[in-house]
Amino acid sequence: MQKSASSLVLGQGGLDIAQSFFKPIDGASPPPPTRRTTKISVIGVGNVGMAVAQTILTQDLADELALVDVDKDKLRGEMLDLQHAAAFLPRTTISASVDYSSTVGSDILIVTAGARQIPGESRLNLLQRNLALFSTIIPPLSAASPEAILLIVSNPVDVLTYVAWKLSGFPPNRVIGSGTNLDSSRFRFLIADHLDINAQDVQAYIMGEHGDSSVALWSSISVGGVPILSFLERQQIAYEKQTLEKIHKEVVHGAYEVIGLKGYTSWAIGYSVANLARTILRDQHKVHPVSVLAKGLYGIDDGEVFLSLPTQLGRNGVLGVTNLHLTEEESRQLKNSATTILEVQRQLGI
Amino acid sequence: MQKSASSLVLGQGGLDIAQSFFKPIDGASPPPPTRRTTKISVIGVGNVGMAVAQTILTQDLADELALVDVDKDKLRGEMLDLQHAAAFLPRTTISASVDYSSTVGSDILIVTAGARQIPGESRLNLLQRNLALFSTIIPPLSAASPEAILLIVSNPVDVLTYVAWKLSGFPPNRVIGSGTNLDSSRFRFLIADHLDINAQDVQAYIMGEHGDSSVALWSSISVGGVPILSFLERQQIAYEKQTLEKIHKEVVHGAYEVIGLKGYTSWAIGYSVANLARTILRDQHKVHPVSVLAKGLYGIDDGEVFLSLPTQLGRNGVLGVTNLHLTEEESRQLKNSATTILEVQRQLGI
Amino acid sequence: MQKSASSLVLGQGGLDIAQSFFKPIDGASPPPPTRRTTKISVIGVGNVGMAVAQTILTQDLADELALVDVDKDKLRGEMLDLQHAAAFLPRTTISASVDYSSTVGSDILIVTAGARQIPGESRLNLLQRNLALFSTIIPPLSAASPEAILLIVSNPVDVLTYVAWKLSGFPPNRVIGSGTNLDSSRFRFLIADHLDINAQDVQAYIMGEHGDSSVALWSSISVGGVPILSFLERQQIAYEKQTLEKIHKEVVHGAYEVIGLKGYTSWAIGYSVANLARTILRDQHKVHPVSVLAKGLYGIDDGEVFLSLPTQLGRNGVLGVTNLHLTEEESRQLKNSATTILEVQRQLGI
Amino acid sequence: MQKSASSLVLGQGGLDIAQSFFKPIDGASPPPPTRRTTKISVIGVGNVGMAVAQTILTQDLADELALVDVDKDKLRGEMLDLQHAAAFLPRTTISASVDYSSTVGSDILIVTAGARQIPGESRLNLLQRNLALFSTIIPPLSAASPEAILLIVSNPVDVLTYVAWKLSGFPPNRVIGSGTNLDSSRFRFLIADHLDINAQDVQAYIMGEHGDSSVALWSSISVGGVPILSFLERQQIAYEKQTLEKIHKEVVHGAYEVIGLKGYTSWAIGYSVANLARTILRDQHKVHPVSVLAKGLYGIDDGEVFLSLPTQLGRNGVLGVTNLHLTEEESRQLKNSATTILEVQRQLGI
Repeated sequence: MQKSASSLVLGQGGLDIAQSFFKPIDGASPPPPTRRTTKISVIGVGNVGMAVAQTILTQDLADELALVDVDKDKLRGEMLDLQHAAAFLPRTTISASVDYSSTVGSDILIVTAGARQIPGESRLNLLQRNLALFSTIIPPLSAASPEAILLIVSNPVDVLTYVAWKLSGFPPNRVIGSGTNLDSSRFRFLIADHLDINAQDVQAYIMGEHGDSSVALWSSISVGGVPILSFLERQQIAYEKQTLEKIHKEVVHGAYEVIGLKGYTSWAIGYSVANLARTILRDQHKVHPVSVLAKGLYGIDDGEVFLSLPTQLGRNGVLGVTNLHLTEEESRQLKNSATTILEVQRQLGI
Repeated sequence: MQKSASSLVLGQGGLDIAQSFFKPIDGASPPPPTRRTTKISVIGVGNVGMAVAQTILTQDLADELALVDVDKDKLRGEMLDLQHAAAFLPRTTISASVDYSSTVGSDILIVTAGARQIPGESRLNLLQRNLALFSTIIPPLSAASPEAILLIVSNPVDVLTYVAWKLSGFPPNRVIGSGTNLDSSRFRFLIADHLDINAQDVQAYIMGEHGDSSVALWSSISVGGVPILSFLERQQIAYEKQTLEKIHKEVVHGAYEVIGLKGYTSWAIGYSVANLARTILRDQHKVHPVSVLAKGLYGIDDGEVFLSLPTQLGRNGVLGVTNLHLTEEESRQLKNSATTILEVQRQLGI
Repeated sequence: MQKSASSLVLGQGGLDIAQSFFKPIDGASPPPPTRRTTKISVIGVGNVGMAVAQTILTQDLADELALVDVDKDKLRGEMLDLQHAAAFLPRTTISASVDYSSTVGSDILIVTAGARQIPGESRLNLLQRNLALFSTIIPPLSAASPEAILLIVSNPVDVLTYVAWKLSGFPPNRVIGSGTNLDSSRFRFLIADHLDINAQDVQAYIMGEHGDSSVALWSSISVGGVPILSFLERQQIAYEKQTLEKIHKEVVHGAYEVIGLKGYTSWAIGYSVANLARTILRDQHKVHPVSVLAKGLYGIDDGEVFLSLPTQLGRNGVLGVTNLHLTEEESRQLKNSATTILEVQRQLGI
Repeated sequence: MQKSASSLVLGQGGLDIAQSFFKPIDGASPPPPTRRTTKISVIGVGNVGMAVAQTILTQDLADELALVDVDKDKLRGEMLDLQHAAAFLPRTTISASVDYSSTVGSDILIVTAGARQIPGESRLNLLQRNLALFSTIIPPLSAASPEAILLIVSNPVDVLTYVAWKLSGFPPNRVIGSGTNLDSSRFRFLIADHLDINAQDVQAYIMGEHGDSSVALWSSISVGGVPILSFLERQQIAYEKQTLEKIHKEVVHGAYEVIGLKGYTSWAIGYSVANLARTILRDQHKVHPVSVLAKGLYGIDDGEVFLSLPTQLGRNGVLGVTNLHLTEEESRQLKNSATTILEVQRQLGI
């Protein structure tokens, strides 16, 4: 546990109560150098970063939690606020630093730093402000934890995950963007809400770019094991393309709506990222739609691009990408998503 | 689950997929009127209210969570942000309303509404702004859930808990203020941090007013079952009164420090209140320092005053107050705390 | 909390320390009669009943847990063994009785009482021994908790669930058999094990009779949202009917194998039943393959029969049955399952 | 995940569906050799070992769980029974072996192997049967996991922990006996039960030998922070020495009573050991009464003896022993406890 700045001195002359309170046993050995605990670092303590940090803490996902931010006061305030809850939580060591010293030896590096999305601003417009930032963050961060998984949350997530990959020098299985994991959750919520069913019983993916060009996989929706499209066919229930488009739009605009109403999104992305951290740290081999190096998959052959595909995750990051069957329309949209992102990358000369 | 405003229409002519998707079994009965689920309402969706709501949700403490605020947009934004996480959470129904309709039948009513504490502002100064507010909140709130426990978090918490008690007409065992539950946690953190021990192994109470006149019970501190003061005596470790005062000041100023650094406190009070909600809902009979009607206890005989005492809590609210032994000094300070609060109440004519 | 038989008397003349230790506050009210906690009763404290009880306790699913068995010594031994762990658990009240007095007001009644399955014995052979038993258990049990959900685990589960329904007089939505919930879990484990994926990402159902005539729904298997059969077709991977039969046999024989090796099954059925209890108590609206009144569903029109169908469960028990598409072969097998069970019921004259 | 013996072959010619189902991404790297997951091994799959294993699994304490036993059939039956629950649990890899191959690289080695305590048999009588056993278990076990914590549960636990320490060659901070952790829990339950309070609010220790000569520390009991003995004094409540002895006897006989009633103890010791495993693996620095090398502590100077003292535990095992103040009577009893154990060790020539 990081000692607080102001130490607790009980006794004249600074006599240390701790030393007399616990007695060592005879012949005790120091910890072996290979013993290690699980550690997560969160870069950026804005609304998203703190929602991620607090959810990780509440769900007891790691032994150590390190926070990093350039705003020294805000950083210390957030660290203290979490530490003050120590009596209500299992022991997680919480530390903070404006440089990367507190992150050394992390298992997962979660990057949320970035300018906040302004209401109405497209995700891609955020890019220029974040690109410069990443070139100062990623190299020292990855150097301090050379075996970590890099999990990028900052927007536009797909391009920034590509940027982080390039800057880190990490193999691509250890660089992941939060991508459409949350979009897919919103999608599942809307379907579950309508059917009055548990969202955890709904399987449904949004793939591709996290943003306006994302692809809703209608053919992938199943509820309690029942594929919806073939169910509708067999029940001879017609459905209209524009209705489906409307639902997809609602998902895409979900983030914009929340930003419009409260100024930013935080809780859902916090749960979404904590959920990814759990799958990785516990080596759960679960499938999540996250942003990965898509080159050579699903007919994406034009260049090095990160976008969301259904990905099996574990302690080594990306274990593989699910070989989903797409309709021709879905396949075309996914390639468009890739082209959109590649075009941005080309414009930026990266 | 509260249906979202925009319903999901799959199919020409509004044919409802849900009706054909699930078939009822033969002879099914409607739910009996007495079956009920656990429900918590949070009044005020500012930083504190949302930290409370999110922690309750993550810890799966209730079947239903209702949010209330006067700011309709902020309220809807927060509700949607939580709902979008449905796929990552056990099914908790999340609803919201600007009036009290969504709170009907709550088990616990958590009131966080109030003006935010301005850096440097004493907690008592907040009172006038909150008093008027409570007279519009408490009567309809308690009428909608006549058997609930009222848990007041807004500051100055002791006076406002008294106010809420008067306005609600509830018996005093069902009106509680979050009081010094968090101060005590900060106290335990500082001691545990120094001794490099788990804060859950530290027993230590701050009693009295939540604020500048709070009373640190030095005689109550024990670590892993060892009473600290008698330990120091036996080890012939001297300690100075001013050193102890310094630690207490650090606890009292902990909130001010966080407010100074990040503008407000949120996470620790969120965990603290969720912790109280768990003890109450699960009927755990645990002892917490919370603000209760202190009349006739610990020599407080001057009038009806709420302040924090070590209180055993359960499904029926306050089950009893622990009969701690105080030193003469502690006893005197506690009575001063009561006098301070009563003086404020007299000034306000309540 | 059930006071232990031997009370703790500290002090000459039986002066009660508890009375002086906690002081009531002024004006406290007794609990309102409508306030209630969640309560689960487990009938039968053999290996299955205790695995269920212990998992429910560890997962903190209920406020009260009542145990019932005819073997008074075994019952008290199991109750004490659980109570001794109180310091490691949230406060759950644990009680026990040889009659049904301890079960009054339960939310869920879990019946595991019955003769243990002898290695090699078919599930149906167990019936005669259990039928007589149920006529002594069910009427007083359902009378003591007239609004409970009856969850039958004893084998042969489908016939005994029918028997329990008849004896209880409960509406059919409140009588459920654990059915093929565990068979389906074994099925998902075998598939997940082969694909090196998380079993929670596999959707797959075993339906029909819990036993030799159960029906594996090949057409329902999906992994991470990918329907397996159509995936194999598209990848032009041939598969042989006898291979699939082999897997199904492995599932069916899973229980027999464990019984052959350790003498009985316990842990998996314990988790399976606790999982159903959670869905019901938390009103999660999840879909589980459990034994329900199937009359009029899936072409089962010959009589009143309980067998496992994918069922949406909540606080009111059965909310509906999923309208899965079956192949002709699957549909035929399911009807055979129903016929097998009905034939047994006819032989027994029930 | 350990592949089950019978592999799932879908497709003519053994074509592997897994290979076509997940596609690797371009440039993925193998896991670095230093990446590791948390692993617990349980030696002995009797009632105690399985209660420990199942509680560890339910509480999601480790990534890998390895079981070892000499009875091959029982072992495989228990492994399969746990694996069949995979769909209800987070992904924990469960393996088993009759030798120690499955335990390689464990963080904690929990030894429960031993003859079951016969009703009426003193714990010390079990020794001879277990001593020979340990000389075959401990050397290969500690060799396979040279950096693990050894946690001995088999009885008589204090002597066997000493034996395990000698046989392992481990430093003493990495060899711990479950000791009186459970006796203390029973003690806390009896006190809490009487006061109608949460057992987690009671601090109370049983120290010394786990067995008939154990020492109840009356001076250490506090409830909600209130030291009981001084409370009774101040309230002028007399108490009789024989009353206290009676409670202590009830604690000591708690195990015998459960053994007499159900034939063995399992659930409480399972929770108790899982609780220790959590403190160690999560590095929680909590204080537990466990059996440690007591030489030089509390005036125990006669030789190398393990007995239960209030011990701070973490990832490196024993971090220190709390410096409790004992009454003269307690101190004398504790030394007697040490003498009793040392006498047994001398009789055995170890």
